[in-house]
Amino acid sequence: MANNSVEFLDDFEPGREYPLGSFTLTQDEIIEFATRFDPQPFHIDPEAAAGTMFGGIIASGWHTTAATMRLMVDNLLPVESSLGSPGMDEIRWLKPVYPDVEYRAVYCVNTVTDSKSKPDRGAVNSTTRLFNPEGEEVMFFTGAGFYLKRPPA
Amino acid sequence: MANNSVEFLDDFEPGREYPLGSFTLTQDEIIEFATRFDPQPFHIDPEAAAGTMFGGIIASGWHTTAATMRLMVDNLLPVESSLGSPGMDEIRWLKPVYPDVEYRAVYCVNTVTDSKSKPDRGAVNSTTRLFNPEGEEVMFFTGAGFYLKRPPA
Repeated sequence: MANNSVEFLDDFEPGREYPLGSFTLTQDEIIEFATRFDPQPFHIDPEAAAGTMFGGIIASGWHTTAATMRLMVDNLLPVESSLGSPGMDEIRWLKPVYPDVEYRAVYCVNTVTDSKSKPDRGAVNSTTRLFNPEGEEVMFFTGAGFYLKRPPA
Repeated sequence: MANNSVEFLDDFEPGREYPLGSFTLTQDEIIEFATRFDPQPFHIDPEAAAGTMFGGIIASGWHTTAATMRLMVDNLLPVESSLGSPGMDEIRWLKPVYPDVEYRAVYCVNTVTDSKSKPDRGAVNSTTRLFNPEGEEVMFFTGAGFYLKRPPA
């Protein structure tokens, strides 16, 4: 269950930032994900990765976005009223994501918009940002999610 | 190894479309991925999913993008010259992705640009599109990748 008070579309506050907690990936987890989905040398081969500009294994950007999604589901998104997402407007992988480093995420509400065709729902446009322990932004994505409104009493 | 002739930045042809093959996800795979990264009911709970507008389990959008990335690495991207990606400009999850359906992907080169600061490399901007067996587009993403140029002889 999300440890917050967001249950329906109505509860998202434009301009508000919601902390999402943090994750740390092990090198084994990074290699396992990338072996399955993004088997490039700097994601799966420690020796090859050591010789690149990254200096060692880094997470697939798709692993980083997925791990951040998990924080969103665990700590914010109201899954009972969630209707899915039409997409993302932008993803930026600003800095490499390394093993054994704790990354914390923050969800920022940009806009909340009522559906024009369906009165029981609407869309939240948000930006989710990921930071390293030095406070540097390492990734962000901006996109939309559809949610039901709170039913009339 | 990629089963094509793209080895370096120079080999990407603007305007060309490269077929990437196809993938099929089982319901177990969809549930496993989403349990780990996107545990919303319509991704992990067959009974709950049956009662939604989707009519059954659908893949997390992040699973769809990751599975498509795997096709790119297996069938096109030259991993020896790949330097990673700065991000995506757009992702659209246009239609649900269901278990036991074969989805095929096509990679389209939009632009190839030399780096202004580093003469040995450049960026490819591309759109990767995913289609269902009916030929309907179900997902696309547009973004960039950095690649080394072919070394002088």
